[in-house]
Amino acid sequence: MGTAGVIVDPGDMAAYLREPREAFFGRAPCVVKPRSAREVASVLALCNEAGVGVVPQGGNTGLVGGQTPDESGAQIVLSLQKLDKIREIDPASDTMTVEAGAILANVQAAAEAVGRYFPLSLAAEGSCTIGGNLATNAGGVHVIAYGATRDLALGLEVALADGRLLSGLSKLRKDNTGYDLAHLFIGSEGTLGIITAATLKLFPLPRSRATAFVGLADPRAALKLLTLAKARAGSALVAFELIPRIGVEFTTRHIAGVRDPLAGAHGWYVLMELASPAESGVEDQLTELLGEAMEQGIAEDAALAATLEQRAGLWKLRETMPEAQKPEGVSIKHDVSVPLESIPDFLAEASALVAVHAPGARPTPFGHMGDGNIHYNISQPEGADRVVFLARREEINALVHGLVTKYAGSVSAEHGIGALKRDLLRKVKDPVALELMRAIKSALDPKGILNPGKLL
Amino acid sequence: MGTAGVIVDPGDMAAYLREPREAFFGRAPCVVKPRSAREVASVLALCNEAGVGVVPQGGNTGLVGGQTPDESGAQIVLSLQKLDKIREIDPASDTMTVEAGAILANVQAAAEAVGRYFPLSLAAEGSCTIGGNLATNAGGVHVIAYGATRDLALGLEVALADGRLLSGLSKLRKDNTGYDLAHLFIGSEGTLGIITAATLKLFPLPRSRATAFVGLADPRAALKLLTLAKARAGSALVAFELIPRIGVEFTTRHIAGVRDPLAGAHGWYVLMELASPAESGVEDQLTELLGEAMEQGIAEDAALAATLEQRAGLWKLRETMPEAQKPEGVSIKHDVSVPLESIPDFLAEASALVAVHAPGARPTPFGHMGDGNIHYNISQPEGADRVVFLARREEINALVHGLVTKYAGSVSAEHGIGALKRDLLRKVKDPVALELMRAIKSALDPKGILNPGKLL
Repeated sequence: MGTAGVIVDPGDMAAYLREPREAFFGRAPCVVKPRSAREVASVLALCNEAGVGVVPQGGNTGLVGGQTPDESGAQIVLSLQKLDKIREIDPASDTMTVEAGAILANVQAAAEAVGRYFPLSLAAEGSCTIGGNLATNAGGVHVIAYGATRDLALGLEVALADGRLLSGLSKLRKDNTGYDLAHLFIGSEGTLGIITAATLKLFPLPRSRATAFVGLADPRAALKLLTLAKARAGSALVAFELIPRIGVEFTTRHIAGVRDPLAGAHGWYVLMELASPAESGVEDQLTELLGEAMEQGIAEDAALAATLEQRAGLWKLRETMPEAQKPEGVSIKHDVSVPLESIPDFLAEASALVAVHAPGARPTPFGHMGDGNIHYNISQPEGADRVVFLARREEINALVHGLVTKYAGSVSAEHGIGALKRDLLRKVKDPVALELMRAIKSALDPKGILNPGKLL
Repeated sequence: MGTAGVIVDPGDMAAYLREPREAFFGRAPCVVKPRSAREVASVLALCNEAGVGVVPQGGNTGLVGGQTPDESGAQIVLSLQKLDKIREIDPASDTMTVEAGAILANVQAAAEAVGRYFPLSLAAEGSCTIGGNLATNAGGVHVIAYGATRDLALGLEVALADGRLLSGLSKLRKDNTGYDLAHLFIGSEGTLGIITAATLKLFPLPRSRATAFVGLADPRAALKLLTLAKARAGSALVAFELIPRIGVEFTTRHIAGVRDPLAGAHGWYVLMELASPAESGVEDQLTELLGEAMEQGIAEDAALAATLEQRAGLWKLRETMPEAQKPEGVSIKHDVSVPLESIPDFLAEASALVAVHAPGARPTPFGHMGDGNIHYNISQPEGADRVVFLARREEINALVHGLVTKYAGSVSAEHGIGALKRDLLRKVKDPVALELMRAIKSALDPKGILNPGKLL
């Protein structure tokens, strides 16, 4: 790889050994930055031979510590940053082939430049990479209409533990020739192979959007609104985000330029968006739908974005929620999902548990209700000691995750397992599923060099 | 299982040992019909212990011989027919949990009974089972809008080779807790485990449809129409089927009640359909879209179905194409896919190859153009000897599949590998992919009892 591809200087390595929040960090003898899939494969062949662990890293934006080495100093970091080419765009086939290190925002922009749409969208899109998105099966705000990252890939190129290169790039929408290997690597967090490139699906560019902010009494009303919106708008419903009253309070209080779009106060809110490749129609559709929701007593009030600026304002309220929690003190967070039908009961019971076990703590559950995915964040009690509250993290995690399990939900809806939830996974996952995962891991990475200590 | 669950009488076994076309058949010491997932698992535990091969069978409608035993008489058939319960429908979560032996048409009807839509639709829906659909990742006519069977499942219950039962049923739309095991079993044709139940996604019921039959000059014009239709209608485009002139000739000639919907003759045709959960709008959308296609010189003529009866007539023309080929003699068939962009070149070159190597033979390529999936059927030359033409099957297969490979296509777009294409798979698949498939097979079924001789 030449000296340019290997970083050993501690100062230059620092940014790769910790993630930005500094919640996860470790040591490494070096960071390697291969320039091609072949170089990635060669590094793996050598490490497999030598029994050295390899931690793949994309944009280093993951939230569960999947992308940083442990503290042993025995694992190297393999950064995909130099594999950032968009290899091909084929608008007629509605596909694009990109290397793992391409920044998500660049992928989105390249699609748009040829009049197509790549729908994956999440807060970190300016710095996360498509390889990381695939390795973690990233979710985001449009899963309700387009699926998660796994649903957006047609084929993968993957460097395997022993240095073989799987050439699975494909523009095909249908291919029933054997086991679906792409789905095995997607979401495996770099523990089965290192994704070096992917062929992605492109979609028609939406030419019209309509966005509304709806005030309602409770999550049960929000579920009714979701059912109604799906029945009326189908796949034109591209976002359905739940926000509690306290989220409006926090954001209007702490984020410059955020204002409450509705005159009165409501218990809960939904930010919903319709989009269509047609030039018009979705505004009328949304207006009609909201009229029906008001008539049926589902919605209490609603504001439609009349301008792009107003739309941006509504989304800003939603997207700055995590940031707005910071001035209120520390938070204990959960990235969970439950069946749609169980969301109202889950939220009510979780809130009751918090009231009993952490009086004064402020639940701020928000997120992708259309996918059953709630970011169950809990802000500390006003004025309480940060350290004392955070010391109760594991206890409160156990309460929330216990409730998730009761409702047959997931303790990691979209962020993955990484280092953070590895031990938790062992407790909550079906034992047979864990056995199968271990059998597959052993078959594909017998020496255990791929992202050791993560996920399994 | 009791004597009622085990068939040993040769007469009673006969229907399970051959598929309806009699292209694949074999022998078996017995056919077992378990009544529960636990019983399926128990049978597998015993067979694994004894080293006896097990051939899982659903509705016995597969086209590649995946569901019948070989002629050794050493494999038993395990029919899923008695596992036919719909365990639960949850309209609020938009999910339904069904057992493997449930007939697809019953699954569709059960969804519709609660005002929901299960979009998988194919010719065999009256007798194929959802377990078979999952095991083979069945396609059908609505893949363009809803995906193939794998995209419609949220979780699986699977009996493993050694008798363990994987409890992976799930109503969750997002769950990033480890490897996606469901996608591994889906499309594995019963070689990694036997699917006993699945949780399926439900969709809003379409309340309006618009269907058109479009005459155009050639497949390149059809590709332009597809691009235009996607740009204008997005996911409202639920079917886009290509039909050659000879298909219209065959069906109008041989199928009672089929008539040519257009006044003049055209080189090629597209049957396209828009659907929406809205009560109206798609007809106008389709009319506008077709107007644009005529203006741009893409379409030569078009007929819109004005009544349900007319719509049924258009679909009958498309769906009876295989049947209409029979009175014209024998056919050599291919279930292939290529990238959308390559469809016109693939069709032109395949036609030229046939003209050179089998003069007089009549290519009748039709199918799911929106997915790049063409059923490249070739009817024998008029009046030629059936046996002489069929004797050239392998030679002609090799020509067509060679062309498919040139365009990075698939030799089995939706029918799977089974026994028919097992040897072909070895020749066309990336060797590293084959190695990975074998490694996974060994890890999950070390004694090789699951559907031996199929796929791998």
